[in-house]
Amino acid sequence: MAMRIIIDAFGGDHAPEEILKGCRMAADELGVQIILTGRENEIQEAAKRLELNISDFEIIDCPDIVTMEDEAVDVARRLKNSSMAVGMRALVEGKGDAFASAGNSGAMVAGATLIVKRIKGVKRVGFAPLLPKSEGFFMLCDSGANVECTPPMLEQFGLMGSVYMKKVMGVEDPRVCLLNNGTEEHKGTELYREAYKLLSEREDIRFVGNLEGRDIPHDGAEVVVCDGFTGNIFLKTYEGVAMALMDKIKGVFTKNLVNKLAASVVYNDMKALKKSMDYNEYGGAPILGCSKPVFKIHGSAKAKTVKSAIGLCMKYAETNIVEEIAKAVQK
Amino acid sequence: MAMRIIIDAFGGDHAPEEILKGCRMAADELGVQIILTGRENEIQEAAKRLELNISDFEIIDCPDIVTMEDEAVDVARRLKNSSMAVGMRALVEGKGDAFASAGNSGAMVAGATLIVKRIKGVKRVGFAPLLPKSEGFFMLCDSGANVECTPPMLEQFGLMGSVYMKKVMGVEDPRVCLLNNGTEEHKGTELYREAYKLLSEREDIRFVGNLEGRDIPHDGAEVVVCDGFTGNIFLKTYEGVAMALMDKIKGVFTKNLVNKLAASVVYNDMKALKKSMDYNEYGGAPILGCSKPVFKIHGSAKAKTVKSAIGLCMKYAETNIVEEIAKAVQK
Repeated sequence: MAMRIIIDAFGGDHAPEEILKGCRMAADELGVQIILTGRENEIQEAAKRLELNISDFEIIDCPDIVTMEDEAVDVARRLKNSSMAVGMRALVEGKGDAFASAGNSGAMVAGATLIVKRIKGVKRVGFAPLLPKSEGFFMLCDSGANVECTPPMLEQFGLMGSVYMKKVMGVEDPRVCLLNNGTEEHKGTELYREAYKLLSEREDIRFVGNLEGRDIPHDGAEVVVCDGFTGNIFLKTYEGVAMALMDKIKGVFTKNLVNKLAASVVYNDMKALKKSMDYNEYGGAPILGCSKPVFKIHGSAKAKTVKSAIGLCMKYAETNIVEEIAKAVQK
Repeated sequence: MAMRIIIDAFGGDHAPEEILKGCRMAADELGVQIILTGRENEIQEAAKRLELNISDFEIIDCPDIVTMEDEAVDVARRLKNSSMAVGMRALVEGKGDAFASAGNSGAMVAGATLIVKRIKGVKRVGFAPLLPKSEGFFMLCDSGANVECTPPMLEQFGLMGSVYMKKVMGVEDPRVCLLNNGTEEHKGTELYREAYKLLSEREDIRFVGNLEGRDIPHDGAEVVVCDGFTGNIFLKTYEGVAMALMDKIKGVFTKNLVNKLAASVVYNDMKALKKSMDYNEYGGAPILGCSKPVFKIHGSAKAKTVKSAIGLCMKYAETNIVEEIAKAVQK
């Protein structure tokens, strides 16, 4: 039987059109069974407009939509009939193998905790996007779900990230580090010093110690662990600096005709470079630690990104890492 | 009478040679009186090797050097006869108008606190480098001196940064923001929520609220306030991402002969771009809140950077911002 992925048709900047197109691509290319949640009539109308055959998709009709302005916890209360909440309940009920949405991140985290629920022993779910580094990519956990953290939470982020990178991303023996203000063991706040101890004592992960912000973009580690406040600052600075610099380079290349000619020569290489720096390439972020696979697709995702996110969801579900995380946190 | 700046001849990666050359340039071009601290015989030998006339420099002979491996507080105890500690005591005794060193940052902060001492009412000194943004530059305070902070400390960082940007850097009505994980008032930890309240209540600064990591490289604010742990992560990520990206661009431009030709066309523009992104251009970082001007020169500074740092020291001393900060923190 084909794997079944539940998709929120009304999450993200380009819903429902790009979501539907991405789902069509995934069904055709990856052989996955798509289950959509959302307003059925609007989904059918959009498919008609796009001349997209979605007769093989299952649709769970529901009236509400979680917007970017909604409070995160509303997904489990006021908005329990939203495409996001209904999708999560369908996941819990076993109607699909994974759930993905490009909607409100905070609501995704709240829903993962309140509706899908955490794996037994997991203290908090972690929001864990993949980011590009000089060679390949790394996972940042937590990147914003938990503003206040305790040392055992950071320990679990390291564990869960390591399992995910190994099983889903195929990284052999991933290196795990703490993001800190220096490499020495005693660096950082009490939280980081305690987390350092806990992570060093684990034999089931490859802890490489503290790394500084400047080491991460180079080839430092595959799993970068920190609290959600620091992770959010890091993530957005990472993105912001790269974008500001690419804008400036664009300025150089469009300055005058001669520069434009030069730009045309390196155009393909620069495009490849830009792509290698674009974290949208990795489709999104798993929410680690919930009892069934929940995946956040980038809010700005278009069809192709939706398709790759669905591909990652399938791997997330088929590799059974939920069980592996459950075992690891018991130790 | 010429302004007198005390310089640690043995701080930084290129001491004493580049320090001496920078001091010579400053004396010639800025009309400043240089007072050096350090091993006099080695200073004289270096000057001889460099064929540099330093007969107009005053030298305070002292035997020790603070290295990068020394503990910060040692500057006031075990290493009280180091070029850094001796320079700071000379500043306290009124032998010069400001003190600058390219040595160990932690020791600079400890010495500023323990030897030069804080301005009455200032809770902690702040380490405050200037960084490039899309237009101009901004100050980051604190960038690592204080790993643990309280809300009134963040309030004072905003105040002191605002005074410095106005008086020394000539920015009219500088915007002050908190670096946070979202723009809404309630974002961040308790520390940030409390600091937000304190900063909003001040009428003597232009507080523009919370900014995210991605907004800062664009034209967000001239003074970015945060705790030293977060500031250090931010600073090093800022630097690390920019460097990693410039490396990749270099890779594109040297890939083959055709790309090299294209590179030669935009060479000057790219060089100007690289310079505009290089935070070394701004010479270093004032240590804000100590009772006399103390300035950290970049550790990797060469002569030209040393000269511009001395220029900033002169402004730091002549604009009398120490008194202005003293007044502001009383309010």
